[in-house]
Amino acid sequence: MKAITSLQNSQVKTWGLLHDRATRNERKQFLVEGYHLVREAHQAGILQELIITQEMDAMSGIPSTLVSMEIIQKIAKTKTPQGIMGICNMNNSNDLNRDRYLILDGIQDPGNLGTLIRSALGFGIEGIITTPNGVDMYHDKVLRATQGALFYLDIHVNPLEEILPLFLMQGVKLYGTDVEEGVFLHEITPPHRFAIVLGSEGQGLSSYAKKQVQQMVHIPTHDILESLNVAIAGSIILYQFMQRGGY
Amino acid sequence: MKAITSLQNSQVKTWGLLHDRATRNERKQFLVEGYHLVREAHQAGILQELIITQEMDAMSGIPSTLVSMEIIQKIAKTKTPQGIMGICNMNNSNDLNRDRYLILDGIQDPGNLGTLIRSALGFGIEGIITTPNGVDMYHDKVLRATQGALFYLDIHVNPLEEILPLFLMQGVKLYGTDVEEGVFLHEITPPHRFAIVLGSEGQGLSSYAKKQVQQMVHIPTHDILESLNVAIAGSIILYQFMQRGGY
Repeated sequence: MKAITSLQNSQVKTWGLLHDRATRNERKQFLVEGYHLVREAHQAGILQELIITQEMDAMSGIPSTLVSMEIIQKIAKTKTPQGIMGICNMNNSNDLNRDRYLILDGIQDPGNLGTLIRSALGFGIEGIITTPNGVDMYHDKVLRATQGALFYLDIHVNPLEEILPLFLMQGVKLYGTDVEEGVFLHEITPPHRFAIVLGSEGQGLSSYAKKQVQQMVHIPTHDILESLNVAIAGSIILYQFMQRGGY
Repeated sequence: MKAITSLQNSQVKTWGLLHDRATRNERKQFLVEGYHLVREAHQAGILQELIITQEMDAMSGIPSTLVSMEIIQKIAKTKTPQGIMGICNMNNSNDLNRDRYLILDGIQDPGNLGTLIRSALGFGIEGIITTPNGVDMYHDKVLRATQGALFYLDIHVNPLEEILPLFLMQGVKLYGTDVEEGVFLHEITPPHRFAIVLGSEGQGLSSYAKKQVQQMVHIPTHDILESLNVAIAGSIILYQFMQRGGY
């Protein structure tokens, strides 16, 4: 097994650059930290390289590099990192021919984005599309909040202006959500192919998205509450759609 | 209007001590930051004192102190604070005679706790009970995530060993949630009086809570997902209970 002990080693710097969104997109790779995420990435078939502080035999066939804890601490983002990290391939495809998508337009909070991706996997969504103006799906805090759910989904980054007209042309039904208007969530039976569009925490759906979306969905709440958190609203829609859609 | 300009003023130190949980509980008071939360606290009738950088006439009858931005920066927890803070009274009561409670056992993440409280208000819950082993409801990050929803709810802090036997004696039906077992959420119609118990992020329901709870609730998800985030699971239960319970 390869071993690196110097913090100045060029390989260490190369790994660290994966914290930069542009570098990730260029190399089509990203970093994961900790046993849980590394194991999930391996299981999903996207783990390319292991960085570990102790020799282990669990992940056969994966090229590994033995490093000191100081090196892990340098490249990890968690405060008290576990002695294991992984380099993974992004599982992007160019096809947009799945049946059920979640489109996340400009979500800013890593916890909200990660949680939505986690819920999406549980409730039968097949593809996630984020927009370039939101937090990146491969941000370390997003990955942690997904608990690895991202690795099992079809992932895309596209501006709404590209994706919504394409879906409309393909006959994919577009749903949005709004505090004020829309059909009650529990009265909707989703069709075979659909996409749910969620807006950002501060702004909600953009005016462009509102124009393109065919059906606004309303989650009934008591009036005293101004609005639900976006990850909550999105997950409730995903839950109810799966119940009514039976997929 | 009173004015304070020195960072060393004893009043500034007294305000700052409200970041300490024990001090908050002793004084039965807590701090809020920013226009939105201060306004919500005022509307809910719990705002006792204003700390502001500019004279304003919006909140009549509330004693105000004019301070420098440096003082706000010293006592605020946000990185770029707005020039307004408030001192509020806790709205604890000793009565536990509401119809619908959410019991949060050892929640660790401020965002999860705050989001659950926000959802609870929207979905007809009247009282929140947290346990002393979890993050405090008056932690600044929790307050921010609630967006002020906490101010309209009946609030308690009690160990489970006190609250669950009391509720059982009163005939309040106790629900818990579990990844593995339980009745499907969409098949449950909640009775007039009930309490939902949610466990912590890492551990789920404690074995004590599992023993006391009368009905386990199961949210169906695809098997590929290990579990939902606790704030998501709790909010979906609250949504579905309100739908089926019609309150």
